[in-house]
Amino acid sequence: MTVESIVGQLAKGAREAAMALASVSTTRKNDALKAIAEKMIEQAPYIKSQNVLDLDAARKNGLTDAMIDRLTVDDKTIRSMADGLLEVAGLPDPVGSSDGTWIRPNGLAVNRVRIPLGVIGIVYESRPNVTIDTAGLCLKSGNAVILRGGSEAIHSNKALAKSISEALSETGMPENAVQIVPVTDREAVTLLLQKEEEIDLIIPRGGEGLIRFVVENSKIPVLKHYKGVCHVYVDVSADAAMAEEICFNAKVQRPGVCNAMETLLVHKDTADAFLPEIAGRLSGAGVEIRGCEQTCRILPSAVPAVADDWYAEYLDLILAVRVVENIDAAMAHIARYGSQHTEAIVTSDYGRAERFLREVDSSVVLVNASTRFNDGGQLGLGAEMGISTSKLHAFGPMGLRELTTTKFVVRGDGQVRT
Amino acid sequence: MTVESIVGQLAKGAREAAMALASVSTTRKNDALKAIAEKMIEQAPYIKSQNVLDLDAARKNGLTDAMIDRLTVDDKTIRSMADGLLEVAGLPDPVGSSDGTWIRPNGLAVNRVRIPLGVIGIVYESRPNVTIDTAGLCLKSGNAVILRGGSEAIHSNKALAKSISEALSETGMPENAVQIVPVTDREAVTLLLQKEEEIDLIIPRGGEGLIRFVVENSKIPVLKHYKGVCHVYVDVSADAAMAEEICFNAKVQRPGVCNAMETLLVHKDTADAFLPEIAGRLSGAGVEIRGCEQTCRILPSAVPAVADDWYAEYLDLILAVRVVENIDAAMAHIARYGSQHTEAIVTSDYGRAERFLREVDSSVVLVNASTRFNDGGQLGLGAEMGISTSKLHAFGPMGLRELTTTKFVVRGDGQVRT
Repeated sequence: MTVESIVGQLAKGAREAAMALASVSTTRKNDALKAIAEKMIEQAPYIKSQNVLDLDAARKNGLTDAMIDRLTVDDKTIRSMADGLLEVAGLPDPVGSSDGTWIRPNGLAVNRVRIPLGVIGIVYESRPNVTIDTAGLCLKSGNAVILRGGSEAIHSNKALAKSISEALSETGMPENAVQIVPVTDREAVTLLLQKEEEIDLIIPRGGEGLIRFVVENSKIPVLKHYKGVCHVYVDVSADAAMAEEICFNAKVQRPGVCNAMETLLVHKDTADAFLPEIAGRLSGAGVEIRGCEQTCRILPSAVPAVADDWYAEYLDLILAVRVVENIDAAMAHIARYGSQHTEAIVTSDYGRAERFLREVDSSVVLVNASTRFNDGGQLGLGAEMGISTSKLHAFGPMGLRELTTTKFVVRGDGQVRT
Repeated sequence: MTVESIVGQLAKGAREAAMALASVSTTRKNDALKAIAEKMIEQAPYIKSQNVLDLDAARKNGLTDAMIDRLTVDDKTIRSMADGLLEVAGLPDPVGSSDGTWIRPNGLAVNRVRIPLGVIGIVYESRPNVTIDTAGLCLKSGNAVILRGGSEAIHSNKALAKSISEALSETGMPENAVQIVPVTDREAVTLLLQKEEEIDLIIPRGGEGLIRFVVENSKIPVLKHYKGVCHVYVDVSADAAMAEEICFNAKVQRPGVCNAMETLLVHKDTADAFLPEIAGRLSGAGVEIRGCEQTCRILPSAVPAVADDWYAEYLDLILAVRVVENIDAAMAHIARYGSQHTEAIVTSDYGRAERFLREVDSSVVLVNASTRFNDGGQLGLGAEMGISTSKLHAFGPMGLRELTTTKFVVRGDGQVRT
């Protein structure tokens, strides 16, 4: 069978499954999620044996230790994927929930109700846990999904897909509700991105290169998750101890993620006192500071920052630091160099707090809290699909609700238009 | 100046204006809308004189009477555009309204708040009123807009843009909040569609060819408004008089619009009685009927339908009619041939009404009411930008709220992540 006909069949199968899936009850969807979790545990030996094939190939191909680590599926990984599914089963079902009901003057009762998007395509890189996480979120939100993982994880993904498929069949769910692309040809991605009649949404999960490739080649709407160049602005009126805790947490607690602080902005009148304190603590945690001229004057050990530092998403123990004139300069810096992801202000001034919250154009803006809270679970949305940095459809963390849309249900008793 | 640098400047100007516009108060936005309305009335003689240049060129180029009619701007058109702006001024402002507030266990107060999308690009065909309608909706929702009308309306659009620009300046609004592309080169559209850094959303308004061109060439998310192949299904239990009123209204009241009925589906047990009644009335209004085999048996004057008729958006006094076995056959027909726009069932059976509302995958589904109600004004959303047939971001009528997105505003008192 050609790659073209394989992709064609996947798309057609997913479209049919989506129609059936849209009206499956919450209980049945939850039962299917639990069944997948059980099936994975039961088939753990097989899944691990298939994962070994991927790991062997990865070593032969000279993948880095970090990449091999992300590719590895062991009992702990399987347990954690299964727990993730149970967590999703416990979340409220967005499908059928109402976004408003009202009666028109002519008596028409209008109800805006949440429905699944239909068919979602996921294009991702090596981590096999994405297969299970996204399958769970899509199923719970009533969407059929086509999963296209990296070629380096193909055996692991096929094994996981086998568990999913058997669990779906045993719980009477549409068999094509979750499908993986069974071939590793690159052509399959390009073909998938052309299936605008069958696929409603594409979500790329991976590095910037993957996302750009998908955006440039897709005829289907794409939910983008670009980089997070997150800022904390420490205002002149900040509580110094609080500012220190927040900055330390935002940089150090998990530096490799998109909601970690990458640039610290400090008001000029607090810089002399604040910077040595926080720098001491950050240095103790191994953080390298790249500072503007004034920062380097206050912190002689800082590396002078170059222009690229203000744009950088380090995802590492490196921090750019800039002393600014006031909140306007801080917000201008964020508007110029930021990525509309997450920004925080630390202040005790009411007016400046509210201005920052209102005027900063990022998916999550915080006052007196760490940037690390931009996360579906932390904000109370439940498990998430990623954090959208584009404004269309969803901006910020994407939970189950963001995998749905609304339709208008209208009940009348004979109304016609005059 | 090259077309490339013109488009580059427009995009840059719009991005700057968007930042300023996002925090302009509702009162000031409404004042600007009213000022544009007044300015247009005041400058009506100039606008009409510029419109004459377009009309002369249109006649020279042999445009049809219908096209010339749509291009014409007279006192009535200007009055109607001004009234449209006043209506938008009267609608609630979505910006700043809350989509939910909750407190997390750690005390973080999370508020999901509506914000403008940023910069919207509109690509449209001849009707100059689109210039004013869309400028009004974008301004009220806090978005900067770049308008690219058809070359045949360039003088009219420039004249309208002059009124807008003067009114914006007199009311202290950002001057680049509304800009039109001042050149008619086709290249300008292609260039505009590449400005993904500056433009957040593209809305094509026009025929299917224009929409497909935009979708294929845009790197920016596109809100699509494809065709409306709308169905009414008359169930066996329908009140015959109500069904007749609804079908007549859906087909005849305004046949040239996307929410008019194009295909009538009738339950087999009611066809013998119902079809002659409705056919008589439709014939009286000049409607041609294209029927399935059974329909043609019942209505000897009907033209036999061919396969293409089931896919057709006639936008004319033509109706496809099919007799179906039951509600399942009706819904299967809709799933296969429909365009996910608007479908109605006429029935007195509770279970079938609810099944139809739940299972039919269209942006507006109605029971016992005319398809003509799929309209922002009729559903209570206020003036609209069109009706989205894609599920991303908005599905169905797009009012002011659909021109916004949400961000998360988080208020803390020192929370860090553990």
